[in-house]
Amino acid sequence: MTTTQARTEPDHAHGSDPHAEQIPAATGHHGPHGYSGQKDAHLKRLRRIEGQIRGLQRMVDEDVYCIDVLTQVSASTKALQSFALSLLEEHLRHCVAAAAEEGGAELDAKVAEATAAISRLLRS
Amino acid sequence: MTTTQARTEPDHAHGSDPHAEQIPAATGHHGPHGYSGQKDAHLKRLRRIEGQIRGLQRMVDEDVYCIDVLTQVSASTKALQSFALSLLEEHLRHCVAAAAEEGGAELDAKVAEATAAISRLLRS
Amino acid sequence: MTTTQARTEPDHAHGSDPHAEQIPAATGHHGPHGYSGQKDAHLKRLRRIEGQIRGLQRMVDEDVYCIDVLTQVSASTKALQSFALSLLEEHLRHCVAAAAEEGGAELDAKVAEATAAISRLLRS
Amino acid sequence: MTTTQARTEPDHAHGSDPHAEQIPAATGHHGPHGYSGQKDAHLKRLRRIEGQIRGLQRMVDEDVYCIDVLTQVSASTKALQSFALSLLEEHLRHCVAAAAEEGGAELDAKVAEATAAISRLLRS
Repeated sequence: MTTTQARTEPDHAHGSDPHAEQIPAATGHHGPHGYSGQKDAHLKRLRRIEGQIRGLQRMVDEDVYCIDVLTQVSASTKALQSFALSLLEEHLRHCVAAAAEEGGAELDAKVAEATAAISRLLRS
Repeated sequence: MTTTQARTEPDHAHGSDPHAEQIPAATGHHGPHGYSGQKDAHLKRLRRIEGQIRGLQRMVDEDVYCIDVLTQVSASTKALQSFALSLLEEHLRHCVAAAAEEGGAELDAKVAEATAAISRLLRS
Repeated sequence: MTTTQARTEPDHAHGSDPHAEQIPAATGHHGPHGYSGQKDAHLKRLRRIEGQIRGLQRMVDEDVYCIDVLTQVSASTKALQSFALSLLEEHLRHCVAAAAEEGGAELDAKVAEATAAISRLLRS
Repeated sequence: MTTTQARTEPDHAHGSDPHAEQIPAATGHHGPHGYSGQKDAHLKRLRRIEGQIRGLQRMVDEDVYCIDVLTQVSASTKALQSFALSLLEEHLRHCVAAAAEEGGAELDAKVAEATAAISRLLRS
């Protein structure tokens, strides 16, 4: 996570500035991402999850019964995994499919990378 | 979730007011919760998770490579489950143990309730 | 797992012999287990899961479409977790409740042990 | 599961007979599967898992301490998910990649199907 954070944190300080040209390495490296088209839907989803996490803070702050807090944690986890699945579906449709056209080592690398990501989701 | 939200949302409007006496039903019903003693630690943990979710929004906004976004989702999910486990441990130590002293139906109910919560965590 | 296996494997050779007195260390150490009463139900459940795993072998052997194999893997995993939950429920009802009566360090140890087991289930 | 079982059970009665031509619908429908090449590795893995499930039956039969049984359940679940991941990796490399060459609706269908399978694994 540290690497990823490090990659995005610097830009964070700029607040509302447009970030597109500030991370040329990332966009140049990977090309247009599969999920760009659904960016708004993804952001909306993540803002709802952020609201759920703030709801959890209120619940703890107000001494809500722990089982009810746990139910809300399960809902948030499910929402995060649902977001991950939609991201993964786009990734398979675009990036893995693009790699399939190149074939060979490129396809193998993309498939191994996607499988490792799925494995991390399963173990989390 | 709706029920739980409904139970906490009303108080939310009061912002920084002390909430203790505003939710007498909940605290009166369940007694002092096991997690009250670690409230600060829990809130700190949840604020970090909230920061991770905002980090995810930045990553999507900046078109970070989807596999890197998925790695961060896994980290956030893991953090949420880790929070759930610490909540559950306190619940078993306090609420379930208290029910054990009363025994019989009270213990059975608390154990069934905790098991159902664990089942929801496993399936999420 | 090796330790546990080592503990049970020796007795396995005895086949249908009654095992009760062959593992005095285990029963003497932990007392009558919470799940003993439901032993038949547990064994029946596990035999069904064993049948599912053999079904998976047939599917692979017969070149069944991989997505269908994955669906059966999900069903088997779900059955295993369902078995784990019923075992855990009995453990909380009996062992943790018994520790609650002793209180203090004994309760803390049992709760920490149960939480670690739940954590392993969540991460698997 | 019933459907899948029904599809494979009939052939099961034939024991060691070659099954290839007995399930023409399945093989004809899907073509040579991605995992056929690793069939032996898959079967070996599944036989080990079957052994783990039998080990669980022995543990329950011998009244092994429930926490130790739960540890073995976690190990078996992990082994099943690891098998699922290797199956999924081959599926992405072969079936999804083949669909990518056809593109359009065929690719969309395969990606949606794979994502649904991953979703079932996550929720189990």
